[in-house]
Amino acid sequence: MKKIVIIGGMAAGCKTAARLKRLKPDYDITIIEKQDFISYGTCGMPFYASGDIDDFLDLAKTPWGMIRDDNYFIKSKKINIKLSCEAIEIDKDNQKVICLDLKTNQQFTLDYDYLVLATGSTPVKPNFPTPESDNISDFHDPLNAKKFKLKAQSGQIGSVAIIGGGFIGVELAEATTSLWGIETHLIELTNRLMPQALDKELSTLLENHLTKNDIKIYLNTSVSKIEKNQDDSLKISLNDNSQINADYVFLCLGIKPNTKLSQQIGIKHSKICGIKTNKQLQTNIKNIYAAGDCIAVKDLITNQDALYPFGSLANRQGRVIADVLAGKKSTFKGAIGTSSVKVFDLIIASAGLNEYQANTLNLNYNCVWGTFYDRPDYMPESQTLVAKLIYEKQTLRLLGLQLIGKGEITRYIDTFSILASNKKTAYDLLDYEHAYTPPHSGPLNPLNHLGAMAINQEIDQINSLHPLSFQQFKGYIIDVREQSEINEIPLDNANLKLSILDYHDKINDIPKDEQILVICQKGPRSYEVARTLINKGFKNVKYLGGGIQLLKSIF
Amino acid sequence: MKKIVIIGGMAAGCKTAARLKRLKPDYDITIIEKQDFISYGTCGMPFYASGDIDDFLDLAKTPWGMIRDDNYFIKSKKINIKLSCEAIEIDKDNQKVICLDLKTNQQFTLDYDYLVLATGSTPVKPNFPTPESDNISDFHDPLNAKKFKLKAQSGQIGSVAIIGGGFIGVELAEATTSLWGIETHLIELTNRLMPQALDKELSTLLENHLTKNDIKIYLNTSVSKIEKNQDDSLKISLNDNSQINADYVFLCLGIKPNTKLSQQIGIKHSKICGIKTNKQLQTNIKNIYAAGDCIAVKDLITNQDALYPFGSLANRQGRVIADVLAGKKSTFKGAIGTSSVKVFDLIIASAGLNEYQANTLNLNYNCVWGTFYDRPDYMPESQTLVAKLIYEKQTLRLLGLQLIGKGEITRYIDTFSILASNKKTAYDLLDYEHAYTPPHSGPLNPLNHLGAMAINQEIDQINSLHPLSFQQFKGYIIDVREQSEINEIPLDNANLKLSILDYHDKINDIPKDEQILVICQKGPRSYEVARTLINKGFKNVKYLGGGIQLLKSIF
Repeated sequence: MKKIVIIGGMAAGCKTAARLKRLKPDYDITIIEKQDFISYGTCGMPFYASGDIDDFLDLAKTPWGMIRDDNYFIKSKKINIKLSCEAIEIDKDNQKVICLDLKTNQQFTLDYDYLVLATGSTPVKPNFPTPESDNISDFHDPLNAKKFKLKAQSGQIGSVAIIGGGFIGVELAEATTSLWGIETHLIELTNRLMPQALDKELSTLLENHLTKNDIKIYLNTSVSKIEKNQDDSLKISLNDNSQINADYVFLCLGIKPNTKLSQQIGIKHSKICGIKTNKQLQTNIKNIYAAGDCIAVKDLITNQDALYPFGSLANRQGRVIADVLAGKKSTFKGAIGTSSVKVFDLIIASAGLNEYQANTLNLNYNCVWGTFYDRPDYMPESQTLVAKLIYEKQTLRLLGLQLIGKGEITRYIDTFSILASNKKTAYDLLDYEHAYTPPHSGPLNPLNHLGAMAINQEIDQINSLHPLSFQQFKGYIIDVREQSEINEIPLDNANLKLSILDYHDKINDIPKDEQILVICQKGPRSYEVARTLINKGFKNVKYLGGGIQLLKSIF
Repeated sequence: MKKIVIIGGMAAGCKTAARLKRLKPDYDITIIEKQDFISYGTCGMPFYASGDIDDFLDLAKTPWGMIRDDNYFIKSKKINIKLSCEAIEIDKDNQKVICLDLKTNQQFTLDYDYLVLATGSTPVKPNFPTPESDNISDFHDPLNAKKFKLKAQSGQIGSVAIIGGGFIGVELAEATTSLWGIETHLIELTNRLMPQALDKELSTLLENHLTKNDIKIYLNTSVSKIEKNQDDSLKISLNDNSQINADYVFLCLGIKPNTKLSQQIGIKHSKICGIKTNKQLQTNIKNIYAAGDCIAVKDLITNQDALYPFGSLANRQGRVIADVLAGKKSTFKGAIGTSSVKVFDLIIASAGLNEYQANTLNLNYNCVWGTFYDRPDYMPESQTLVAKLIYEKQTLRLLGLQLIGKGEITRYIDTFSILASNKKTAYDLLDYEHAYTPPHSGPLNPLNHLGAMAINQEIDQINSLHPLSFQQFKGYIIDVREQSEINEIPLDNANLKLSILDYHDKINDIPKDEQILVICQKGPRSYEVARTLINKGFKNVKYLGGGIQLLKSIF
């Protein structure tokens, strides 16, 4: 019989406990949790806040409607639960955890054979002054979601400012506008929304979508202070000296791993990404393991430490620790940060590095862009999907993918995730076998095309122009769309219009000594014409990545 | 300058021609096509027949609305097109193809440096007598789809019999009932619909869905003859001596590769799967390549020849031949038969082997079943998904997957396809990183769970009972659902009811010497209780695969 103490009762902690108890029923397992609930589905909070999910407890229920409370874990799973208790010190030499019961203020001590740190994360604090107010909160603590919803339901909130345009900020912006009709201001420090996932040319599609849904977006904007108005509403001062008034402010400035305890006892840490572990999720201190938001995950693309605070990874890590402690072979290899988010009816998905990150890391990368139908164009339900692929130049190794659209998206980010995690290349992206039927995809899918484009670019030098470079392009522009398409999305500065049907006859009209850019609606025709021109001896020919459909979203 | 002749102008032939011309513009490329159109999107025919797609020509258009006819290929792509021309003989020694112009009845000869056989497939002929009738056809020739639709539109068809319940038969059954309200009879020789993809316990879900949508299904049924009634309608006699009357009969009996030409000149063939090629898609005859429905594809799971007549593979194969002929390194490695189909609002997807096939091949396999929500259960849009995984016993190598449901399905069949094609195991299924967000999936997805179930079954002997074996089960049945669930789906023959909350207290009530089956709604609780019983020293404990939700669909 071993004694296991787990600090933290959310995804990683509860998964470790439940799996380990199944494998080793005679182990004595105790979870210590600061809050007075455990196993809460925090990823569902935006949908609770928005009203899509009615009951606060729905996020703590089993599929058969039983509440996953301490009683459930104790009775059904035979796991000891200490709610409202905080681990305040670890005595690593004597293998003890000193705990404080937050309700009685009494201290007590738990012995352990193995200790699991699943201490989670806390919101990053603002670097600007904020007043004491019940109307400012993060969106990390479930009780804040509950508080906000009560206020919204009772009509107390006419306007909201969300500071931070990452995943949570964006999900929250939908939540506040869609059901409650609250005037929503979304403030982001960088030049784009979801900067960890998206590069600017793709984030414009998200920004346009949010703007269309009445969300006010402030990019390149920092907050200098928040003050309380006399009516208890809040005044947010921005770096351009303008001000926004809002009834409620959400601080969505990111999160940081909770490492106070682990730092005290000499556990090794990554500088910003949390506790360092090996593949068995062991720390450098004997018999201490760690999982969940508090650990640094090995990024399988960069081989560097990363902060990937995802419930999906926390679950996997919990399983690994349970298996290891039960004497089974199991490893957590790492991750590449695969994620998706739905905002109104738009899906944004990404995996691996974006170009900004690849650039920062000084990688020798290149990109291709594509605008696609997610299904054959003849299917009435076809939806447009915009994609950007980042790959390593020499090896064609997959580095990152960004996808935005309304249709079939998740399958492509998942397949990319597997391929990129396994260090596969653009050839594998081109080649992999997907389920083809017209209601769900074309015979070649967007990833197959992106793989082909990358190969064509690196091997045959059929190069795409970065959409963000379009306005700086000085050269000869050839529009190879049909007149009906040009009428729909005009392009004023084209030097030549050609139909794909008879462009061969007019190639002599094209100046041989200029830089040439070929443009079409989505990409394939301009690629084909660019290749023909290169075959004919033209130098300096590019086609516009993503076609004019992506371009019009940017400029 | 090389001369390339391509026999066949659908997916494989057109892709080869278009890509090769881009790579080698000086090559002289000619496509010979028997029909008077090329590059037709035949996979879209069910949606044209159903009325979802209006215009017959929509399936032959580029995304920008240009018809991909001979003129388009000749002018835009500089490829020679010979429509209504049949290749009647290959002179392999002199590298010539003798062709017949079907309109003028004149013969002509084409020299080639390289010949590409993209001769496609033809429908399997019925083995029962059929009369001459304009109201009997296959659904392989686009003109038959056109004919049927004209008749349906003009109200001439009140009833249809579809003989053959494979992919096409099932798609067609939806097409005839959904828009046209035609009384539809679907006749299948085996004990289940889509027998290549599904095993019986999953096909019942499809059968129930079609029945609910007013389609009459006849399983284990063969046709003995079709006769013409006096009013030109058709009388279909079945093996049980009953008869069906229908205004129109579709013969959907499968397809076979067109190998008449290739057989004449000693090209090696698989017995039933078509032309044999190497990975460069070369046949054994010098300078002759083959692609598309007419070739045998290497199955990456069985390493045997397979017939995978999918447009998606034809496109990939066309690219490979073009690359090889242009001097690039390129290979077609094979496939595992990944597919999906949408019938009304139900999605059916499969990849690799089903159990019937694994059994026929005498593999040492095992199965697990799961009934899942495709998203967290708290999300209002969650849909139920039923899955069956087949894997190799010793190695846990992935052999096959079947999925049926209404929500997120395609992502799982695609990811399985990549993993199984790469000879990965249940551990990889458990481990892979997907994009997690509540609108699209849970933190662990159905494949992760299936992988875990397979590992638990093989490594820890927590075994599932085959749902089809339920009625033969003689032993002690424990229902671990809550009363509200039992009220919803009663299970009369349970020996004991236990709540997951307090089952530990009642384990002494369970007989130690009997075979025990634990049942819950979807699977997880019965797995957990089964494991607990095994931990407590019970022998012969199983849980019901897929839970009672799958069971109730079967019996």
